[in-house]
Amino acid sequence: MRSDLFETGHEDYRQTVREFVKRRVVPNMERWDTDRLIDRDTWRAAGAQGLLGLSVPAEYGGAGESDYRYRVVVQQEIARVGAAALQSGFTTNDDIALSYLLRHADDDQRGRWLPGFVSGETIGAIAMSEPAAGSDLRGIETTAVRDGGGWVLNGSKTFITSGILADLVIVFARTGQEAGTGAFSLFVVEDGTPGFTRGRQLDKVGLHAQDTAELFFTDARVPAANLLGEVGEGLHALMRSLPLERLGIALSAQFSAEAVLEWTVEYVRQRRAFGRRIGDFQAPAFKLAELSTAVEVSRAFLDRCVREYNAGTLTATDAAKAKLWATDLQHDVIDTGVQLHGGYGYMMEYPVAKAFIDARVQRIYGGTNEIMKEIIQRELIGRS
Amino acid sequence: MRSDLFETGHEDYRQTVREFVKRRVVPNMERWDTDRLIDRDTWRAAGAQGLLGLSVPAEYGGAGESDYRYRVVVQQEIARVGAAALQSGFTTNDDIALSYLLRHADDDQRGRWLPGFVSGETIGAIAMSEPAAGSDLRGIETTAVRDGGGWVLNGSKTFITSGILADLVIVFARTGQEAGTGAFSLFVVEDGTPGFTRGRQLDKVGLHAQDTAELFFTDARVPAANLLGEVGEGLHALMRSLPLERLGIALSAQFSAEAVLEWTVEYVRQRRAFGRRIGDFQAPAFKLAELSTAVEVSRAFLDRCVREYNAGTLTATDAAKAKLWATDLQHDVIDTGVQLHGGYGYMMEYPVAKAFIDARVQRIYGGTNEIMKEIIQRELIGRS
Amino acid sequence: MRSDLFETGHEDYRQTVREFVKRRVVPNMERWDTDRLIDRDTWRAAGAQGLLGLSVPAEYGGAGESDYRYRVVVQQEIARVGAAALQSGFTTNDDIALSYLLRHADDDQRGRWLPGFVSGETIGAIAMSEPAAGSDLRGIETTAVRDGGGWVLNGSKTFITSGILADLVIVFARTGQEAGTGAFSLFVVEDGTPGFTRGRQLDKVGLHAQDTAELFFTDARVPAANLLGEVGEGLHALMRSLPLERLGIALSAQFSAEAVLEWTVEYVRQRRAFGRRIGDFQAPAFKLAELSTAVEVSRAFLDRCVREYNAGTLTATDAAKAKLWATDLQHDVIDTGVQLHGGYGYMMEYPVAKAFIDARVQRIYGGTNEIMKEIIQRELIGRS
Amino acid sequence: MRSDLFETGHEDYRQTVREFVKRRVVPNMERWDTDRLIDRDTWRAAGAQGLLGLSVPAEYGGAGESDYRYRVVVQQEIARVGAAALQSGFTTNDDIALSYLLRHADDDQRGRWLPGFVSGETIGAIAMSEPAAGSDLRGIETTAVRDGGGWVLNGSKTFITSGILADLVIVFARTGQEAGTGAFSLFVVEDGTPGFTRGRQLDKVGLHAQDTAELFFTDARVPAANLLGEVGEGLHALMRSLPLERLGIALSAQFSAEAVLEWTVEYVRQRRAFGRRIGDFQAPAFKLAELSTAVEVSRAFLDRCVREYNAGTLTATDAAKAKLWATDLQHDVIDTGVQLHGGYGYMMEYPVAKAFIDARVQRIYGGTNEIMKEIIQRELIGRS
Repeated sequence: MRSDLFETGHEDYRQTVREFVKRRVVPNMERWDTDRLIDRDTWRAAGAQGLLGLSVPAEYGGAGESDYRYRVVVQQEIARVGAAALQSGFTTNDDIALSYLLRHADDDQRGRWLPGFVSGETIGAIAMSEPAAGSDLRGIETTAVRDGGGWVLNGSKTFITSGILADLVIVFARTGQEAGTGAFSLFVVEDGTPGFTRGRQLDKVGLHAQDTAELFFTDARVPAANLLGEVGEGLHALMRSLPLERLGIALSAQFSAEAVLEWTVEYVRQRRAFGRRIGDFQAPAFKLAELSTAVEVSRAFLDRCVREYNAGTLTATDAAKAKLWATDLQHDVIDTGVQLHGGYGYMMEYPVAKAFIDARVQRIYGGTNEIMKEIIQRELIGRS
Repeated sequence: MRSDLFETGHEDYRQTVREFVKRRVVPNMERWDTDRLIDRDTWRAAGAQGLLGLSVPAEYGGAGESDYRYRVVVQQEIARVGAAALQSGFTTNDDIALSYLLRHADDDQRGRWLPGFVSGETIGAIAMSEPAAGSDLRGIETTAVRDGGGWVLNGSKTFITSGILADLVIVFARTGQEAGTGAFSLFVVEDGTPGFTRGRQLDKVGLHAQDTAELFFTDARVPAANLLGEVGEGLHALMRSLPLERLGIALSAQFSAEAVLEWTVEYVRQRRAFGRRIGDFQAPAFKLAELSTAVEVSRAFLDRCVREYNAGTLTATDAAKAKLWATDLQHDVIDTGVQLHGGYGYMMEYPVAKAFIDARVQRIYGGTNEIMKEIIQRELIGRS
Repeated sequence: MRSDLFETGHEDYRQTVREFVKRRVVPNMERWDTDRLIDRDTWRAAGAQGLLGLSVPAEYGGAGESDYRYRVVVQQEIARVGAAALQSGFTTNDDIALSYLLRHADDDQRGRWLPGFVSGETIGAIAMSEPAAGSDLRGIETTAVRDGGGWVLNGSKTFITSGILADLVIVFARTGQEAGTGAFSLFVVEDGTPGFTRGRQLDKVGLHAQDTAELFFTDARVPAANLLGEVGEGLHALMRSLPLERLGIALSAQFSAEAVLEWTVEYVRQRRAFGRRIGDFQAPAFKLAELSTAVEVSRAFLDRCVREYNAGTLTATDAAKAKLWATDLQHDVIDTGVQLHGGYGYMMEYPVAKAFIDARVQRIYGGTNEIMKEIIQRELIGRS
Repeated sequence: MRSDLFETGHEDYRQTVREFVKRRVVPNMERWDTDRLIDRDTWRAAGAQGLLGLSVPAEYGGAGESDYRYRVVVQQEIARVGAAALQSGFTTNDDIALSYLLRHADDDQRGRWLPGFVSGETIGAIAMSEPAAGSDLRGIETTAVRDGGGWVLNGSKTFITSGILADLVIVFARTGQEAGTGAFSLFVVEDGTPGFTRGRQLDKVGLHAQDTAELFFTDARVPAANLLGEVGEGLHALMRSLPLERLGIALSAQFSAEAVLEWTVEYVRQRRAFGRRIGDFQAPAFKLAELSTAVEVSRAFLDRCVREYNAGTLTATDAAKAKLWATDLQHDVIDTGVQLHGGYGYMMEYPVAKAFIDARVQRIYGGTNEIMKEIIQRELIGRS
């Protein structure tokens, strides 16, 4: 069943995005993986084509677009070609870092930072996770201490998407000793800040073009003007940011699943074995029938989530459900896709192989799927 | 996430249905199971309350309601209390038998039969399956041969819902010898027709109150006026009827899953073991979080299906997906529901136990879920 | 792959058991279900054929057989015909009640009770579960208080296998108020004991021929000579009894799975649909290939468990694994078996339908499968 | 439950193997992955330690060991450290290539080739798969045509394990045009054969140290003395080789699953989140309890398979079951292992991450698991 999410405006915009993907993404994906980095030219080109910073107000150079469906179009078109590392970078920029700024930056900060998110000049990152704390934010040990007119940060962060390239990192740091929710604040740490260094790029299972890294703060001096929002409001800001972050992951998972399913259906319709097309065997055909159903069912839910997000009513629990569901589905589809490609499914030249290694992190980052279940059960059952 | 399917009119109607369910269904369910029959008074009361024949035109006493969401309300309220046998009987009447009549009956036939579907006086059945043919309609052996002004039917049918009580049975019979699609026609066989007899009520795993039976036709004489539609159009009529039949099963499965999930959540929130509420243990809480997600995801899809049906665009493949998906989900939810009830889940006094035995047929009838996959893959892959 | 568990002696004995099953079990199963009871003649006939009390020492009329594989033969032959209620009754007698007596009864008690377990005159039961306590034995509220030369029992028990017929019930009761493990003792309550009454037979999903019931003790006076083992050793005795109880359930599940798989394979090899045998379709054939593999894999493990039990080295954790694994497998096999039988899988005249309702309790009783996981993880991870 | 497969002799041998693994494997694994090759020194060292060619008769320098359990020890110790690429190379040599030679080589050939399999001087490969044929051997297009005293080979092979390094490749080629089983023969193509070239090393999802490649034969001239076995007996020879090949994959999967489970249990016992050890949360603890059970159950079956192999009674169907079962299990264990490691599960420095990418091919090569099901169902149901 067709999705009824998009309208004409979105479909028009899709042409622009698709053209960008065709000309700037597809020809470069292999190189990015080899370089273990997506070059800045790609970001600038994306900015020039209007793919970035859609929600930035017009006064800062953006489109001021509050309809999230335009972002969905971008995600869908990138997922369609399996450019998961680019997806991840763009999502971190537009759905996460930019959202923090739009929500919490003061006028001065908006003027300084927003334009770069539209032009593609600025790559943003968000630094939450720490080596010892994992998903448990209460275990955060990075501290920010007032010092004269500014702040001094100490600590380390890990698993930071765009960690190598980021011009601007939103750092979640402890500003109070109390155990409560008011102990954390957000700081924008810019490239070149003294005491801010980047560790090695992490060697991951997949997403090779994504420059995930560790970040270190050793008496890093951050000016007062780089405090984002109020002191002690970091956790609250984070909570407000999570639904969109998770919806973004869910959407990338959904569209990846749709793409991989399509590639696989195409493959089994062409490839022959034992005198027949693979798709002529009932067992793989049934498996794909199940997955095709699952993908459409899931899409109906995600479309509903997007509409709720647009209406401002998507709850944290809804977003957790979307993230849990779509990333589990993505896994199932890709695993079957690999299997039905036979030996070629294990060869990196096939996009399904790349999807296999890229997608494994989806059930882990943005809060593991186990944490999603914890969030969901809390509303359902109230287990503390 | 809440469904946005219903509007005020449906919610008003829901009150009527809920009142009926409370007064006439809940107090009688146990007796119906013991009697292995739902009494005719219940049907008449449902008719009097406006629960039956909603789509019958006003001239025949109905509401002429083309918005299927009113039927959905009926299904939902009945599923909420686990009255699966009643569900099955009403669905057979309103979504299947009545649909055939509305689509194919001539004026004379409409006048004879439609009013009873509104009042609850007439219980309809549809006789397709045969002992040797199962889901394979091309294997149908019941024949109808012209004889003077009428027809003579010979053969037997099995697994006929409402087979014992039915006043009017739509029989699918072979009128031609060719292998093609034009070999079958539909006949309305009324109670009392000479040569038409009913076999024993089948002893089933569940749905005990549902009078499923075998039917026999031994030189049964059916007047020409009881031919439904044109000669040779039986298979075509059947094909047109299947989407709604399957959507109906899917909806009953969805609402059953929602109800059982709710009962189970309630149970684990109350029942204590090892010094805690069962819901305070992480493993069952996570399992219910998964199922709660699955139920909402599925609902988004079914709501979309209902809208498509209302718009006249629900395809046979869509309906197959809905049936496959929702009945598999219903099974998962009920199986977990039984398990989390512990020993009580095996006791018939608990509704989850009744749901367990009632629901098992959902993945089988209306076309087994394997047939659903066959239908889905045909569109997806084109395996012949 | 064939099991190598049995030797010639066991195969010879199998002939005896098979003959009994053929003459006394198969012709009566339907009647037992209707009567909701297995008649005592069956027990006596089983005793006369040497099927009961195998491990009772020769001086009390038994075979003094310490090789558990003879019991395995009995279980296998009964499971082969799907006589699950009989299985459950015999297991309760031979693997549970009798084991308690052999381990804890003094000479006088052995003389009084053991012979009846060989002849089939005595039907034993074991009363642990209580309405409020479920699987949590520390929540047991039935008390036994010393009174003169005997004991006075008060409380109620539920889900008691053979509860209606049992001549002799081993009751687990609280004899101390402390929280520790020494608070419970075992009492043999015989039929006719004043203050001991039986509740109604429970209406279950399946196992209809099994007379599961509630038992009530209202100032029930039990003579001192009926205390089994030492005061305060009830929990310890229970712990020693659990491995065999769970191994017994696991074996019945395994053999049931083997039988249902065989019935289903036979069915798909005979039954035709769409012009072919069902087994000629790849999807069902693959599903059965998976299950056939699973069944053989599981059998290798259970054979190993039986050997360990014979050697006295089967641990509680091993038995929990066997119970968890085999009952989950049984469920999967039966669910597929029902599905591949199509509409007939829902008809009680097909043994697969009976297996479906009978087997559902296997994952629940003898400790739910969740409790099995708790036991297993305790050894593996040490979560407290 | 402990395996009872090994005896003292095997445990003594294990010490030798473990020492080799500790000194020569563990310190080099990362380098091998970077080099995309395992150096020949490693092979020679393994030969010197008695790890290779165990079954080669004493007259050719081997141990003449017919007890396959010694090979199992080698597999287990290599799997224990996750050296999957080495595993794959050794298995190809010892369980596949060497088996062909032992079974089909004449005395002259034995003298020429066997010693190198003991010393580690010779790396063998087996070339079956072709780009267009996949697992369907009847689609093989590589031809061998008699020419004077020798043969001329033309065609290409792909997915060839050890394809870059192999000194000796057993090539499966068409020597007849007929459709029957007698159309294929085996040829030993040695390094340096004119017309035999190697394609690029394939870029795979994992097993990076394994030099999988394409091989090309362009009028490659193979002397008559390199025909292995009789003309037309290729398919028959292959059929005889498959059980051991598949048992080998199954064993490597089993031991990998055991290792990954152990790493994961260790991880959740150490790593803390939300104030507790991860293993203290019930949901992951239950998941690991299930997997621990599955691993032990599977082991019992594989031990039985090894015994059957030793006895000469392991059938092709049994081996297919072992391969299907153990590789599916390996996937489940690794997937959970990755997930419970959280973000670290996606970092290549963690062995579970390496296992994730290495293991994916196990369900594909040696015949996909779908082919295993086809083999199993053929014996079970007889679907043609």
